[in-house]
Amino acid sequence: MVVKIFVSLKSGVLDPQGKAIERSLHTLGYSEVQDVRMGKYLELNVEASSHEAAESRIREMCEKLLANPVIEDYRFEIEDGTL
Amino acid sequence: MVVKIFVSLKSGVLDPQGKAIERSLHTLGYSEVQDVRMGKYLELNVEASSHEAAESRIREMCEKLLANPVIEDYRFEIEDGTL
Repeated sequence: MVVKIFVSLKSGVLDPQGKAIERSLHTLGYSEVQDVRMGKYLELNVEASSHEAAESRIREMCEKLLANPVIEDYRFEIEDGTL
Repeated sequence: MVVKIFVSLKSGVLDPQGKAIERSLHTLGYSEVQDVRMGKYLELNVEASSHEAAESRIREMCEKLLANPVIEDYRFEIEDGTL
């Protein structure tokens, strides 16, 4: 199965990288852009007997390694097939 | 409107960060995981008269600043509302 994981900073947590991108976009003339937030996007293949089994393993991986639950939120999508 | 942008390395481009995450997951016992690819995830607010207008501006921003079209692919979703 293919898993797509999205990790983003919790609202309220300062995001200097997002701010830098926002400033750069404004400098390039894209002044209609506001509130840029930068996060991580992971794609991976996982072998599991069912979507439910994959879901519980992926949640563990996110809590332990892929996201920092103190300052980051994560969500993921599981699809059939391989990358 | 809220725009969610996903930037990932083109297939064939080496991804050392993804490889490092894969090794760490294996060390933690998640051996069912393969082919980890690391990318970027951006969320932002944009003001535009229509989805079509926003789409063309966002595509420009991706080509000029947010992605490196030589080695990265990008896709994005536009939703009504604000972050």
